[in-house]
Amino acid sequence: MNDPCASTSYPVDATNQVRRRHERGFYDYSTVHALLDAAALCHVAYVIDGQPFCTPTLFWREGSRLYWHGSSASRMLRNLAQGEPACLTVTHFDALILARSGYNHSADYRSVMVFGKARLVEDPEEKENALVRMVDRLFPNRTAALRPATAQEIRATSVITMDIERASAKIRARGVVDEDEDYELPIYAERIPVTQVLGEPEPCPRLLNGVERPESLAIYRSTRLLQEVLTEALLADGNVQD
Amino acid sequence: MNDPCASTSYPVDATNQVRRRHERGFYDYSTVHALLDAAALCHVAYVIDGQPFCTPTLFWREGSRLYWHGSSASRMLRNLAQGEPACLTVTHFDALILARSGYNHSADYRSVMVFGKARLVEDPEEKENALVRMVDRLFPNRTAALRPATAQEIRATSVITMDIERASAKIRARGVVDEDEDYELPIYAERIPVTQVLGEPEPCPRLLNGVERPESLAIYRSTRLLQEVLTEALLADGNVQD
Repeated sequence: MNDPCASTSYPVDATNQVRRRHERGFYDYSTVHALLDAAALCHVAYVIDGQPFCTPTLFWREGSRLYWHGSSASRMLRNLAQGEPACLTVTHFDALILARSGYNHSADYRSVMVFGKARLVEDPEEKENALVRMVDRLFPNRTAALRPATAQEIRATSVITMDIERASAKIRARGVVDEDEDYELPIYAERIPVTQVLGEPEPCPRLLNGVERPESLAIYRSTRLLQEVLTEALLADGNVQD
Repeated sequence: MNDPCASTSYPVDATNQVRRRHERGFYDYSTVHALLDAAALCHVAYVIDGQPFCTPTLFWREGSRLYWHGSSASRMLRNLAQGEPACLTVTHFDALILARSGYNHSADYRSVMVFGKARLVEDPEEKENALVRMVDRLFPNRTAALRPATAQEIRATSVITMDIERASAKIRARGVVDEDEDYELPIYAERIPVTQVLGEPEPCPRLLNGVERPESLAIYRSTRLLQEVLTEALLADGNVQD
């Protein structure tokens, strides 16, 4: 899966090569895209005058391109409009690991770091399409049922895009791993799973009489794993690109 | 809560002032620390040769100082050893918000961005104490029951620390908010809660006979909210500083 020469993988260089625990690194489209598509929240790192910023935001993927959004007033977006280097990271936190030594305490996780140059979406057609996908990627076909966007709203929303130039996934899914000799010790060790789940949806208290929940939202139901629902939503929207 | 002159708040300047939706911004110790203490995972942004990196890692707080860790081989740690500007961000993702227009689709969340200069912990006593706290902050008094760290393990672990120079919390907890006139439309809207919860702990299959789960881990039980357990663990460890 790590062959950087295969056309199904992102290229590897000094920027994205996983160095520490390199056996945890993956660069293939399939692994990288699946981890991105199972998330709605990312953190974007960017630089202004030498000062790094780490900003949480909602994002989505189209092929080898990422999109995220915010107000035109945002400091981040102003800075990235010119094609600035950025790093977008998604982390799925899967478990806390209690080992028999402090050194082997750890976490199970799946993360992706994506590197590229972020830029403001200025083409009107690309922007209009992005504003639809921003909603429909989460909630299939929802835009068609909404009050249409006004010109003012479209102006007030900025969309940022970044082609994936480099990417690396890093996965630890090993549970408790101790030194061979430590298994002989009378010390308790365990894996504590962590999941991100949906709660019971809360209808707006001001819904008009007779307005029902659309069938397309049925995938969003209590106790389901967020990562599974987000992946399904993208497939249901019929627009997913490998 | 936003008065930057009060001694119970972090100072506000161009770096940490919340600009977009400034009514969502908080700078007081109480809000900032509570959001940090309810998390184990953060994302750290740092810069190498103009390229920003956004790295997920486990962290913890002592007073107005943050700590995080990794191998000495880590690119991030090498870079930060000299006192490099960094930004550490924690995000609690609370809900997806479906409104009556695309523009008002949103998320409920609570995030904190912390700015400072990160440096390698080199003082032996500070490092030894940090390696204990790294474990005991999550699992109260656990280190005392573990196989002691070896000199090689201590050498192989690097600890990074950063005094909080600037910080801002940003909170949206409003559920569905539409334009006044949009409430008259026959469009479905809802809030979908998202939580991070614990699963059933999985004891290591190689536990020796008679080794029981310590009582101090009782707070880690299935279906509990991760943010609540992490906050309780810190209080139980008896070392929390406001």
